[in-house]
Amino acid sequence: MSLLCVGVKKAKLDGPQEKFNTYVTLKVQNVKSTTIAVRGNLPCWEQDFMFEINRLDLGLTVEMWNKGLIWDTMVGTVWIPLSSIRQSNEEGPGEWLTLDSQVIMADSEICGTKDPTLHLVLLDTRFELPL
Amino acid sequence: MSLLCVGVKKAKLDGPQEKFNTYVTLKVQNVKSTTIAVRGNLPCWEQDFMFEINRLDLGLTVEMWNKGLIWDTMVGTVWIPLSSIRQSNEEGPGEWLTLDSQVIMADSEICGTKDPTLHLVLLDTRFELPL
Repeated sequence: MSLLCVGVKKAKLDGPQEKFNTYVTLKVQNVKSTTIAVRGNLPCWEQDFMFEINRLDLGLTVEMWNKGLIWDTMVGTVWIPLSSIRQSNEEGPGEWLTLDSQVIMADSEICGTKDPTLHLVLLDTRFELPL
Repeated sequence: MSLLCVGVKKAKLDGPQEKFNTYVTLKVQNVKSTTIAVRGNLPCWEQDFMFEINRLDLGLTVEMWNKGLIWDTMVGTVWIPLSSIRQSNEEGPGEWLTLDSQVIMADSEICGTKDPTLHLVLLDTRFELPL
């Protein structure tokens, strides 16, 4: 069992400031965490999340949604293979990731994303080292 | 363009009352709506949602999540082909649907769900008739 730590820091969104009120969801296995919604095209969440992981062959699905009055609209998504995530006990500066428009599936499991958008998200991901 | 109306009515969940604080998300194309979270194994939402639909070959993905302090856990999911939904201007009593554990994908699109749970959800779905 490994402890995955994810810091959802901020984003640079392509479009006018008043268009966006966005939140980020993190999904891994059958578990999901969600940030608060933040207004503007340079939203800053600075929220940290943790997940207990027992299968390293899966991935972390990151989705950004724009909150609406009646419904929420997908801004973009990115999939991070768990096997690519570093081990560290210290938070890092994070990495700017391009959000894509679509997920790619294989055998009913997400294995990637495609069709890049102009939106970027800054995420810090790491596995906590055992004591 | 068709107007899809979905009433999320209530659920019968398998397990002790104190285990559940659930909400339902409805996803179609790149749009999502979410109910409030309701406690107990017989939650009652009675919330109505509408979606503008321009592709009848897709489906409505219904997910039920159990809200937790740190993360939310998937209770189950069901996928309804839009082509199977009746046309009507009147709300109906709804239909009890069994939630499944897993989605089935084909070509990166959901095409069904499998592995039934013991949880049931009552949904009313219809396309509003043009005036």
